[in-house]
Amino acid sequence: MKKHFSFESITEMPKHQKTHFINSLGGFKSVSLLGTKNNLGTTNLAIFSSIFHIGANPPLIALIFRPSPPERDTLRNILETGFYTINHINESIYKQAHQTSARYDDSISEFEATGLQAEFKNNFPAPFVKESNIQIGVEFKERIDITINNTIMIIGQIKEVYVPEESIGEDGFIDLEKANTVTCSGLDCYHTTVKLDRLSYAKPNLEITSLL
Amino acid sequence: MKKHFSFESITEMPKHQKTHFINSLGGFKSVSLLGTKNNLGTTNLAIFSSIFHIGANPPLIALIFRPSPPERDTLRNILETGFYTINHINESIYKQAHQTSARYDDSISEFEATGLQAEFKNNFPAPFVKESNIQIGVEFKERIDITINNTIMIIGQIKEVYVPEESIGEDGFIDLEKANTVTCSGLDCYHTTVKLDRLSYAKPNLEITSLL
Repeated sequence: MKKHFSFESITEMPKHQKTHFINSLGGFKSVSLLGTKNNLGTTNLAIFSSIFHIGANPPLIALIFRPSPPERDTLRNILETGFYTINHINESIYKQAHQTSARYDDSISEFEATGLQAEFKNNFPAPFVKESNIQIGVEFKERIDITINNTIMIIGQIKEVYVPEESIGEDGFIDLEKANTVTCSGLDCYHTTVKLDRLSYAKPNLEITSLL
Repeated sequence: MKKHFSFESITEMPKHQKTHFINSLGGFKSVSLLGTKNNLGTTNLAIFSSIFHIGANPPLIALIFRPSPPERDTLRNILETGFYTINHINESIYKQAHQTSARYDDSISEFEATGLQAEFKNNFPAPFVKESNIQIGVEFKERIDITINNTIMIIGQIKEVYVPEESIGEDGFIDLEKANTVTCSGLDCYHTTVKLDRLSYAKPNLEITSLL
């Protein structure tokens, strides 16, 4: 049995309840750790569940920043240095990843606070997360201010990618389950996944087949 | 063992392979059916994996449109009527949902072509998907043109929500697994999920606890 919520009943929800409710409605989300450093060399690590694909040609990836404090450090570092990393979260590190959302003092790096290890390689200016199986080095490209709710969209170009060799298919598909990547829902729920199927390219009047 | 891909090696990938590869890198995605109709009353249904939460206060949800044909119908209907529905996909309908991505003639509704049922209720102007367990009625609010890759972001306000009663927690969290919602990765892979945990609000020097 479905329960109906009108715009008025949603608007009247207590703020905390509304935040959980609306956040859940968006469905399962990508969840990753953003690694940055500032011009003084202090590293920062923050969890984001607002990362999304916007195009492969050129290879771009975007994310949304809310105006709240822990996210401001990451945004400032991206704008200051022009580079950041996106690191997939796996089952072994999701609790440490969640802990990066605590409001630490500016002088404390979330790498040290959570025990996750910063990894610098191939002269990329931002720190990767060593424990992460899929690591992406990104260069800042464009900032779009979303005035309707005071959020900011940051678009970056994918510059470096590290992926477990055994998770990459011949057609370029990356098996995220083999890489142990998790997903999240709402503000605080983490999930592993179970593959249903990969489906063939759909055409009118042609039955879909399995690609597995 | 991780394999390293430089910007150059990504750029040189064949287009099809690059599309799969970059799409996979974004992590698990929300995947839903968008229901619309045009001013003549013809319904349209299309699968999207580019839907994302952008804020709860006010309750907003966004999605990205590529410039390609099957997506153009949905975009045109949204701009023409101002309303659309977002319908979560579950295990029973993911193949029909995938089939909506075929390039049908304008005169054919994907509801008829796939056998999914259009549901009109409470005077909402756009069709819901009857087989969907979580249904969201949305009003168009803002269009943002992303010039870097010729995509379009559409922001809408959540106006009506239908959710299975047993999936809603006291704090507003919706248990998407109880609602049978699936997730997807890459262009064509569908997954169910297995909950790891819900974690408490993180604070410095305080151990995270389970909310379950």
